[in-house]
Amino acid sequence: MTASPRRGAHLLDAVVRIVAEGGLCAVSMRAVAVEAGVSLAQVQYYFHSKGELVAAAFEHVSDGVEQRAAGVDDTGSSQEVLRRLLELWLPLDAERARDARVWLAFTASVASSEPLRTINIRLDRALRAGFADLLRAAQAAGELDPTLDPEVHAGVLLAVVDGLVTQAVIAPPDGGERLALATAGVEAHLSLLFGAEKS
Amino acid sequence: MTASPRRGAHLLDAVVRIVAEGGLCAVSMRAVAVEAGVSLAQVQYYFHSKGELVAAAFEHVSDGVEQRAAGVDDTGSSQEVLRRLLELWLPLDAERARDARVWLAFTASVASSEPLRTINIRLDRALRAGFADLLRAAQAAGELDPTLDPEVHAGVLLAVVDGLVTQAVIAPPDGGERLALATAGVEAHLSLLFGAEKS
Repeated sequence: MTASPRRGAHLLDAVVRIVAEGGLCAVSMRAVAVEAGVSLAQVQYYFHSKGELVAAAFEHVSDGVEQRAAGVDDTGSSQEVLRRLLELWLPLDAERARDARVWLAFTASVASSEPLRTINIRLDRALRAGFADLLRAAQAAGELDPTLDPEVHAGVLLAVVDGLVTQAVIAPPDGGERLALATAGVEAHLSLLFGAEKS
Repeated sequence: MTASPRRGAHLLDAVVRIVAEGGLCAVSMRAVAVEAGVSLAQVQYYFHSKGELVAAAFEHVSDGVEQRAAGVDDTGSSQEVLRRLLELWLPLDAERARDARVWLAFTASVASSEPLRTINIRLDRALRAGFADLLRAAQAAGELDPTLDPEVHAGVLLAVVDGLVTQAVIAPPDGGERLALATAGVEAHLSLLFGAEKS
């Protein structure tokens, strides 16, 4: 990124709002100028191309996800901490519903954009590493079956939350039922994972 | 859809190829005409708008997914049948890698397109119902803990495979390692699920 993230932040927020409403195809330098209430020249001053702008916006969103994860209350059992972490992503309120749509839009574009892929790989690795650390701590504390592979199960945890978020985004706008299923899904998966200790 | 699916099928295949390469933003009536080697007027004869064309292409892809699922070898234990079903979606070869990119692109657009949402909800329900039937059969056969909720765990199974496919799409093009993790993830989840019977 050539522009300072702080100086361009108002433009990045505008990109996020556009993506949340109309998807990534709705993003253009001009649409961002209109949404942010600035001139096209001002957008072009901060970002030289739409690709650069979109990558910066995804990095902005991705930083937010990591910060949210880092800020989670880490007291209590590993299962409780993991539940809190996983529920951060479920679209349980309007803000998280918007974030979920934006995350999905950026993620889907990874296949056709190398800069977006790079950012997504970094986020994916950071989250999996965080989950794996938590699972190793749970094993050390005797809360989790020590024969389970923490790396593989961290990938499954990330898959469960990504998949449940995707299902909740797909659901009808008044999809309270679907959301209840997502919360129940997180709980069911954690019960399987931590229940396995007893077998 | 106003046009017959069979008559427009060559155009739908062209849409799928464009989405696999450049994402949904790359689709236009003109781009589809060029890709299919026909005139713009011919595309317009079959489909009145880009929205209609994209919805028909997603329906085409979605039918393929359901047909593939219906064609899976259903002999052996429930765990074996489920493993075969889940691995259908993992991008283990070039064709499935393309399908995974296309599925993700269509799915991400659901939030900003009601017709795509309707198709996706139908697919989501059909797959979850199929998984839930399999889980109930496994419970009846004594292969799965009878106290587990088949609907909730069907949702988790779908989430696991959607999430692992998303991770594999995100991975670098030579992501053999990531793909191995996806296969290991399916196995690890099924082991937890069916192992729970013993606890």
